This record gives sequence, C-alpha cells and structure tokens, in this order.
Amino acid sequence: MMPTEHSQYHSPVADPGHVVKSSPVMIDGVALNGPTLDVSAAEGFIQQSMAIIMEDAVRKATNVREKVCEWRSPEQLKELLDLELKDGGEAQSKILQRCRDAIRYSVKTTHPRFFNQLYAGMEPYSMVGSFIIEAIKPSLYTYEVAPVFTLMEEAVLKKMMEFLGWEEGGDGIFNPGGSVSNMYAMNVARFHHCPDIKELGLSAVPRLVMFTSQECHYSISKAAAFLGIGTKNVYVVPSDKRGKMIPAALEEQIKKAKNEGAEPFMVNATAGTTVLGAFDPIEEIADICEKYNLWLHVDACWGGAALLSKKHRHLLKGIHRANSVAWNPHKMLMACLQCCAFMVRDKTGLLQRCHSARASYLFQQDKFYDVSYDTGDKSIQCSRKPDAFKFWLMWKALGTSELERRVDRAFAMARYLAQEIKKREGFRLLMEPEYANVCFWYIPPSLRNMPESPEFWQKLHTVGPAVKERMMKKGSMMVSYQPHGDKVNFFRMIIISPQASREDMDFVLDEIDRLGQDL
Amino acid sequence: MMPTEHSQYHSPVADPGHVVKSSPVMIDGVALNGPTLDVSAAEGFIQQSMAIIMEDAVRKATNVREKVCEWRSPEQLKELLDLELKDGGEAQSKILQRCRDAIRYSVKTTHPRFFNQLYAGMEPYSMVGSFIIEAIKPSLYTYEVAPVFTLMEEAVLKKMMEFLGWEEGGDGIFNPGGSVSNMYAMNVARFHHCPDIKELGLSAVPRLVMFTSQECHYSISKAAAFLGIGTKNVYVVPSDKRGKMIPAALEEQIKKAKNEGAEPFMVNATAGTTVLGAFDPIEEIADICEKYNLWLHVDACWGGAALLSKKHRHLLKGIHRANSVAWNPHKMLMACLQCCAFMVRDKTGLLQRCHSARASYLFQQDKFYDVSYDTGDKSIQCSRKPDAFKFWLMWKALGTSELERRVDRAFAMARYLAQEIKKREGFRLLMEPEYANVCFWYIPPSLRNMPESPEFWQKLHTVGPAVKERMMKKGSMMVSYQPHGDKVNFFRMIIISPQASREDMDFVLDEIDRLGQDL
Repeated sequence: MMPTEHSQYHSPVADPGHVVKSSPVMIDGVALNGPTLDVSAAEGFIQQSMAIIMEDAVRKATNVREKVCEWRSPEQLKELLDLELKDGGEAQSKILQRCRDAIRYSVKTTHPRFFNQLYAGMEPYSMVGSFIIEAIKPSLYTYEVAPVFTLMEEAVLKKMMEFLGWEEGGDGIFNPGGSVSNMYAMNVARFHHCPDIKELGLSAVPRLVMFTSQECHYSISKAAAFLGIGTKNVYVVPSDKRGKMIPAALEEQIKKAKNEGAEPFMVNATAGTTVLGAFDPIEEIADICEKYNLWLHVDACWGGAALLSKKHRHLLKGIHRANSVAWNPHKMLMACLQCCAFMVRDKTGLLQRCHSARASYLFQQDKFYDVSYDTGDKSIQCSRKPDAFKFWLMWKALGTSELERRVDRAFAMARYLAQEIKKREGFRLLMEPEYANVCFWYIPPSLRNMPESPEFWQKLHTVGPAVKERMMKKGSMMVSYQPHGDKVNFFRMIIISPQASREDMDFVLDEIDRLGQDL
Repeated sequence: MMPTEHSQYHSPVADPGHVVKSSPVMIDGVALNGPTLDVSAAEGFIQQSMAIIMEDAVRKATNVREKVCEWRSPEQLKELLDLELKDGGEAQSKILQRCRDAIRYSVKTTHPRFFNQLYAGMEPYSMVGSFIIEAIKPSLYTYEVAPVFTLMEEAVLKKMMEFLGWEEGGDGIFNPGGSVSNMYAMNVARFHHCPDIKELGLSAVPRLVMFTSQECHYSISKAAAFLGIGTKNVYVVPSDKRGKMIPAALEEQIKKAKNEGAEPFMVNATAGTTVLGAFDPIEEIADICEKYNLWLHVDACWGGAALLSKKHRHLLKGIHRANSVAWNPHKMLMACLQCCAFMVRDKTGLLQRCHSARASYLFQQDKFYDVSYDTGDKSIQCSRKPDAFKFWLMWKALGTSELERRVDRAFAMARYLAQEIKKREGFRLLMEPEYANVCFWYIPPSLRNMPESPEFWQKLHTVGPAVKERMMKKGSMMVSYQPHGDKVNFFRMIIISPQASREDMDFVLDEIDRLGQDL
C-alpha cells in the first residue's frame, strides 16, 4: 500500500487540550494515548471541498448555460467512477477529484431547466440550514440532544397548522417523505378506529377498508401493503375528467364496503395529484366522512403550498376539517430535500399513544427538564433528522410574503406555458392547468395530418420517450413524460423555482420542437 | 415592513444566459420575464455561511476545550431564539446570526467528549459527502435523476454483503434509520411467509408471531405495531446475564406459539444490544430457524461494525446464514447521520416484489436505458436520500484497513475504561464489556459504606440523573444513564471516535467523581 496524504490524520497527535500522560497505554496492541484524528488537519480538506462545492455544485450547477445533466450509461459511469472499495485509502487530492466527478455526473436538480420532478431549484437559506445540520449531526429524539431543533420543529408545525386553519392547533412530526407521512396517517387513523390493534394486530379485527381516488399517489397503495391492511382493501374511487374524486362515487364505495361486512375507517383526499395537479373536493368529502364517522386524511404533499397564497388557497377549501394532513415544504416551497410534515388535529396525544414504545434508555422520566419536549416517542424512527430547521431558516429569511409571491408566480408561470402551448402548432394541452402541472403532447410534423386513429395514438406514445432520450443526451433540460389512464405518453412540466422565467418556458417548447422535428 | 438586504435577490435580473424578450409578460399581475432569484448574489450569503460553519460547527464544535453543550431550558431557549415566523423576511446579517445561534445552543455531537448515543465524532470525508448531497439535492428513485448515487449504493451494498459472508451476494436498500430497516425485515419476512398478505392484508390470515430477545431494540415493538402484527405477537425470549438470547428459550417460545395455533414467521437476533452491547448467538439461533423454517433477521445496526475487525468479527459468527440484516454505518463507522443499510440474502427480487407499486409516472418501462437501475420501487419511500455516498466517500479515503483500525481501537478503549473503573474507588462495573458499551455505577462517598439494602439501591438510582444534570449544565461532557431490567440507573459509556483518547476516559471518571462527590 502506498503512503497517502491522509495518513497524517491518523497518528497520535499532541493536542494542548488533552493532557497527554507520559506512559503510553497499550491495550490489545492498540496505543490509546491522544486522539488519532487530527481535526485541524482535516479542516484543510473540508475547506478545499467547500471551494469545490461552491464552484461546481452551487455556481456551475445553477448556471443556465451549463448542462442539466451529463448523461452516461450505467456501464460507462461505472468505468468512470471506479466504484470498488479497497483495503488501502486514497490521497486527499484523489478524494477531491472524486467529489468533482460525483458532482459532474450527477443531475443538477437545482438547474433552472430541471422540471422533471415535483421539486426543483436552489434555495440558499435552506441549503445553509442543511449544511449546519450535516456539520453538527443532531438527532431529534430528545431535547437533551437536540434542544434548538426540537423547538424549531414545534414552531414550524404551529405555523403550518395556522395555514391549515386549525385554530386550536394540533400535533405533528417531520419525517422522511410524503410516503411515510401517509403511512403515519393510516396508522393513526386505524389506532383511532380501534386502539387494540396496536397490541393485538389486524388478525384480531374485522377487515378494515380505506378509500382514495384513482389519481392518488402510489404511496397509499404501498402504505396499505406495509401496514398489513392489504392493497385490495384500498377501495379506489373514480375521479372526474380533471382528476378530482367524485364524492357520490366515494359514498357508493363506502356503502359497498359496509354491505360486504368490512369496516371503513379512513378516506384519503389528495390536494394536488402527482400527474395532473388535481384537487379533490375536500369540503364535500369531509361531509361524507362526518356522516360515516371516517378519519379524513388530506395528502397535500404537493398542493399544500397553495395555502400560502390568498389568491389560490380556495383549492384546499375544507382542509380545516381534516383529521390529518401531509404537506411537503420540499416541493413548491423549495426547502431542501427532505422536508415533510405530518400533522394531526388531535390534541390528546394520539400521535404519541399510537407510536410510543417508552424505551427506558432514551426517554427516562427522571430527567431534570420537562420531558414533554422529548418528542421522539411520537415517531416510528429512532434517530431522526431535524428537517424543520431547513424550512424555519428560509421562512425567517424570506417571510411569509415572499413565500406567497413564489407560489403565485408558479401558478402564473403554468398559465403562461399553457397559453403558449395553445398558440403553437404541434402542441396540444391535455387540460387547462389548475395548479403548477402543465400536461401536453408534442405532435411531430409527421403525425400532424394523420387522423386520430389507434395508429396515431400508438405513434404519439413513442414521442415522449424519444424526445426525453435526446434532451438527456444533450443535457439541455429535463422534463418528465408518462402515460396516464387511457392517455398515451405526454409531457408534464412543473415550474417551481424563481430561477426559471418566461424565457425558459419558451425555451422548453422550442427545444421539444427542435428535438422532435424528425420523429 | 422594513426594506431588507435580501430583497436584492427577488427582483428580475438580467442573466446573459436567458435571452430576455423586450415585452414584459404579465399573468395574474405577476411579471414573468427573467428569474427572480439572483443566484450569484445568493452565493455571497452561502460563502459567508460556510465560513461560520467552518469556524463554529467544525473547529469550535470539535475542540476539546470548548463545551459539549450550552444548556438552556426550553423556556430560556425559546426566548433566545425568537422562533416565530412572520410576514416579513429578515436581513442576511440577521440570518447569519441565527445560524451562529443555532450552532451555539445545539449539542456538539462531534465533540470528543460526547458519549451520549451510539454515534459520535467528526468524520471529514463523510461530512463533505453530505454537503455535496445537500447542494445538489438528488433523490434516489431512478437512475435518470441519480445516476452516480444509484451506482454507489450498489457498490457499497455489495461490499457490505461481502463482510456478511454472503458469497452469492443479495439485495438491499439504504433507508432512514435502523428502526425502518427492522420494519423492512418484518415486511419482507411476512411477504416471504405468505405473499398474499400484500394484497389481502393480515385480517385474511392466521395470527403471525415473531420472536426477539428481551434486550432487543424498541424499534421491534414499534415495527410490530406499525405493520399491523401487534406488539403482543412479538414473543419475548429471555436473555442470559450478559444480555444474550437463550436459544433453548427461543425454541420454547416457538413451540408455545405453535401450540396456540399461531403462525411463527420470523426471529430477530440482535448483534450489539443498545444498552449492554450484547451479541445474540447467531449460529445457534440460525439452527433453530432452519428447523422451524423461520426467517432469520439480524439487527446488527450497532454491532455490524465488528465485522470489519478480523479480531472481533467472531461475535457475529453465523451472520452469513441470516436471511436479512440491518447495519448502520452511521454508528461506530462514523458515516454522517443517517446512513443505514437493510440487506436481504434473496436474489430473486423479493425486496422489489414485496414493496413495488409500479407507479407509471416514475418507473416508465419504455425508457432508453436499462430500467433495472431504477431502484426506487424496492423502497417504501418515494424521495430517498443517497446516504450510501457518505459512506462510499469515506471508505475510499480511509480504506478498509483504517476502518478496521478504528473498530479495534474502540474495543481497546472500552477495555481500558473497564480496567480503570475496576481500579477506582466508588466505581463499579456492571459486567466486562464485550463490545464498546461500558456500563457502570458511580457510588458517591455517602453511599460507599452502606449495606446494599433496598434503600441503598433507591439512593443509587438518583445518582445518574443528578450527575447528568450537572455535567450538562457545566457542558463538560455528555454520558447517558438509564435503568435496565432490575438494575437501577447506571452510566453507559460509548467510545467510538478517533478524536477521543485514553486521556478522555480518565477525564470522564474524574469528572463524574467531581460532580457526584457530595451526592
């Protein structure tokens, strides 16, 4: 093994804060005097890395003249990255190069022309918050270990619940993803329905059934499988042409389940569906939930941001009646990934009772401070990251008013794009956008004069993947495509970031046309 | 509202990369020409923040002469932090001060005298890896969005499985915490036992029962509740005095469950228990699992690190026979929080079949690359952080050999501390350490000549919390205490970080003695 630069960190060093005793102590052949990591030498490496991150992962990654992605096939990339882990370490200069390569071949989700997912853009305050978290490594189980972040989580949840219109407040927890939030909802709802399930399990009770629309996120199905409810016990309610759940159809499904002898316990309404950006009619669904005594969960992971806008919050009318809500500030509000809140309107400690296991090594009751600040037993996790801080810091910096301006701008940008699509030859809108999802087909010249036969749709279905391949290999932008229900592959544009502008919308349409001309 | 410095970011700016059209476009009163976030202006803020992070969260946080924590009660801290979120934003200078305050009042888990949890210490390479992740915001569902990190996760899992002795390899996924890994294990085990459960749920099948020792992590109980199995269907197997599961007792419990007409499906063995650091005898447990055809999961979240040591890996003898393993490199191996692998020996796609929901908007099958690299449908999450990268980068830098040296040193340090405890008046070891957990009582002078009556134990029980309060208010170190089974409160020291040395061990004992003299 070659001597390497980093070896300087790994020999005993004199640290004036440590009183080094004269006699070296050996145990099992290991010398124990003095630290073997010289933190001050490591600082040089961290400094150099920060310069690279600033240059490549911040400046270059967000520059519209740079590529969004530097496409390599898995085989090529394996070759380039030299992934194998070995006995010997590598020199610092080599590691710095590895950092540069990891950034270079990664997709730049903070680039102004990344429109591929429900998140995008660079948010400087939130980014700094996440750097702080990574540097000090807090874990959010007890106040003792994470005092600052425990209080910040409480403050952020309180403010978010104000926007839900929960005048009495409630309870909540940040967790690793909207999918996990929906799992929390399902577990709390069934515990509320029948607390014995926690101890006895589902084999001791009648078949539980929940309801959601055909347009809901796939995490509902995953959650039903994971929680032992079973995917077939998720009764799917039809949606209208816009993608909104049909309340009358919900009531029919509830009656059907009851007739079968099953026990309905929960309805999931979606505020901002993944593909179409549709909002289920919460008010009417809440009426049905009241009538049948069902828990109402609103999956507002994507659509929750509209609550910040006085102009658009009507889309979530009735959300104050929800029993629980999932809302991801890492989507339109641009907090760094991941930043996801699950909230319940209950104030009796339901969240805690439902999930607690009272580990005596962590949640000691004889601590010297108010242990109600040890929030970890509400969680299904043990270690938990303080994601709320990333949102708190940016909210402090921007204020509610700037968050509102950003949301309003995202709505306006989607409307602009839809107008342009309607004006252009070869582009066809699926429907007017209600939110920030703009769904459209690109019809290449070769198909423009064809009748809309099965052959036409079959050919159109291949356009999305082909254009996507070309845009990725060129690295000019990233826009997702998908089929949906009976619709063949279409593009879905999501415009969130204040880095993007009208000029980028024009660019996207021009570029699709350039890339797809000959298809 | 006062004008603030940050407002400069939020007006349209000329960006030479964007061809700004002459006519401004207004939609719903919002001007859409040009970006409204000036990234280059934001870079100045990020630069200044990085300087603060370097100074306060790296240099000062790891300096042994600084405090581990700056204790404030929740009430005091709320006052200091001004948590409320408001309509108007704040100036950058104010936000920088908020960053300083957040760091100042947070516990320094990277300080050489933080011994409170099963993680500790500063790892420069992993920290840099986590900064890169935060800057470029990847999400690990598809190769398309996270090419580099998809391949790195595969490489790290492959290497970890080598250490498990899985010669044929297997499958796996990084996920947000050992608790979640244990949930994965339970779900995969029951799907393997009866695949219909995914669709039909547990109400359609006989009562399932699993087995674990009384010393296991509390996440097993949480998982059983969450997955609908029920906490009472976790049959608890007694452990011996060292905290190891008694195999004969396991077999008795299995027979008992069968006699009750329940269906045993899984055994959880713990490699490195949370409080005592005990290792269940995997080989003997594996024999029993084979005999009764039960899934064997090994929770090696804490103890897995010993596999890196040729000297100590015998503690996990038999782990190659496990069907699944949970192992957290963020504990003794010091990858940044969170870094947790769940692995299955199965190579037939069990993980995927068990969790998949085949979302057509994300896992399109008509993509232009090999979609077997889209690993997201193995996961219960949608967005998922590329935690493996934090481990990959440090492993490249340090090599397996340095990881092994660190593990061996942690073992040696625990032995040194145990020796010292035995030498000192007023200290009493609970048992010889087998791993890196050193458990002991401190007996203040007032109790040293008392007979070991119930009154003695009752008084001793109050020593841990009192000493803990004093160490936190002084900020000199953090060591956890807990009761356990029939044992009154004792201290549990965990020594992981190469920043800590023999001198720190001496300091801990001296300091406990200083703080507890008058109790």
